[in-house]
Amino acid sequence: MAILVVGSVALDEVETPFGGRKDALGGAAVYFGLAASYFTSVQLVGVVGEDFAQEHLDLLAARGMDLGGLVTAPGKTFRWGGRYGYDFNARDTLYTDLNVFADFDPTIPAAFRQTPYVFLANIDPTLQLRVLDQVASPEVVGLDTMNYWIERTPEKLKRVLERIQILLINDSEARELAGEPNLHKAALAILEAGPRLLVVKKGEHGALAFARDLLFAVPGLPMENVVDPTGAGDAFAGGFLGYLAASGDLSTEGLRRATIYGSVLGSFCCEAYSVDRLVDLSRGEIEERFETFRELTRFEASRTAGTQ
Amino acid sequence: MAILVVGSVALDEVETPFGGRKDALGGAAVYFGLAASYFTSVQLVGVVGEDFAQEHLDLLAARGMDLGGLVTAPGKTFRWGGRYGYDFNARDTLYTDLNVFADFDPTIPAAFRQTPYVFLANIDPTLQLRVLDQVASPEVVGLDTMNYWIERTPEKLKRVLERIQILLINDSEARELAGEPNLHKAALAILEAGPRLLVVKKGEHGALAFARDLLFAVPGLPMENVVDPTGAGDAFAGGFLGYLAASGDLSTEGLRRATIYGSVLGSFCCEAYSVDRLVDLSRGEIEERFETFRELTRFEASRTAGTQ
Repeated sequence: MAILVVGSVALDEVETPFGGRKDALGGAAVYFGLAASYFTSVQLVGVVGEDFAQEHLDLLAARGMDLGGLVTAPGKTFRWGGRYGYDFNARDTLYTDLNVFADFDPTIPAAFRQTPYVFLANIDPTLQLRVLDQVASPEVVGLDTMNYWIERTPEKLKRVLERIQILLINDSEARELAGEPNLHKAALAILEAGPRLLVVKKGEHGALAFARDLLFAVPGLPMENVVDPTGAGDAFAGGFLGYLAASGDLSTEGLRRATIYGSVLGSFCCEAYSVDRLVDLSRGEIEERFETFRELTRFEASRTAGTQ
Repeated sequence: MAILVVGSVALDEVETPFGGRKDALGGAAVYFGLAASYFTSVQLVGVVGEDFAQEHLDLLAARGMDLGGLVTAPGKTFRWGGRYGYDFNARDTLYTDLNVFADFDPTIPAAFRQTPYVFLANIDPTLQLRVLDQVASPEVVGLDTMNYWIERTPEKLKRVLERIQILLINDSEARELAGEPNLHKAALAILEAGPRLLVVKKGEHGALAFARDLLFAVPGLPMENVVDPTGAGDAFAGGFLGYLAASGDLSTEGLRRATIYGSVLGSFCCEAYSVDRLVDLSRGEIEERFETFRELTRFEASRTAGTQ
């Protein structure tokens, strides 16, 4: 089944101690869409400015993405700049120039309104609600949000949470959303607020999936060559929901696999600047890394239990 | 096979936002020994003061620990006080009164010198070397250390590392020891310095095991009821090395299992103040939690691969 993603399309500037990149393709909808494109058809709704290079559009189209909902507006594309230190888990935002994204009011093309899977990337909950008002009742709506909206528009966000099935956020966001420092308790409280499934992304520490009948954890893959973790959370969401949309398997076994595919795409994302690694993957590489996660985490019970 | 542990025996004071405990049994050798006692015979070498209550000795003896190397010296027992905030991953040390531990110079009783498994808890590397000089060539020596020794006695620590097989430290210690922010690269550098196996403890984020032919990760078990994480790292080491000593299985499969048993004992440790949870476990509870970790982490490949 196809998946519709609504969110930011950006031009990023990234600095790390080892190098950097300017005017690089970025944005949550882009990272999500590219990751999901390895599993299913992706429809993208977003806005760019007149400075958005044709090569970026070509690159998205080459991954089979339907750009019928990507509007070009007068002005500049959303631009974000960030700097990582030696600890890639923390970054400083250098600037956030919303530009044409400031007036983003997503219009879902008629051809996308029946799409059964929807991902609302991190944008103003008011806009997320407007998207939901435009689509026919989708089978699965996935959602991302951030501390900014948790603090500034909690009531709007609450209404969004009541209308979605899968929330994918990071651990500090989960704690803040629930007002609860214990992550497990926070997760249970969030499940009471609407979503059937909560996926907590923890960067290099992996991810957790919580549902009424599921508690699943995947560790982060230790990586020697982290180049740029920008977009890894969105790539995770793309791998996760892309796999679900393709398989239609919403069983707990399917959700476990989706969490692994999310981890796989998130890990690839970190291996190069911008979206470089997400545009040239092969099915074989994805399946190989799925198996890497199995080898990373598998263990057998001992034949002699050993305890006394 | 039996295991010898050399390290601190302490009386702890712990404060958390939800309560606390004074004059509580603690110390690395105690946490380690109690955890290991569920797997094998434990010999303890340490020192306490005249204020050390008989009930604590009785408790250790009741778990079958051989206290023939636990000296009572004139003065007070090592006392440590710490405070946790809502985030149990961080704590403030309120005081560290070494007392009799300041002059600790471990003497290994003759009866313990042939013990095949040895754990050197976190003490001055000079003392760790003296212990190694007193024991016959053990099959496996496990080691803990901390930033304090990495910074102040790097040469001594280097000599210790050349004489041990398994290093169990936390992630920040691994990065500092190797002088390398990337944890995977740091691990590979540490394996070059002596130990055959490096186990990196990451608190609520789980643990990693690195060897030339092994890369294994276990996520942290999401817990609703963390009461007091003090000693969890030592309990992890006790479960890990206790299982290895009992099974004698140093294969990569055995090391995977040991990492799970370490995680099991570490998680139990957090469920109550001081050593309370480590003194009343049953073999059934330990095996049940081993299975909980399997259920937490298992996943199957899909029959239809799903990628395109």
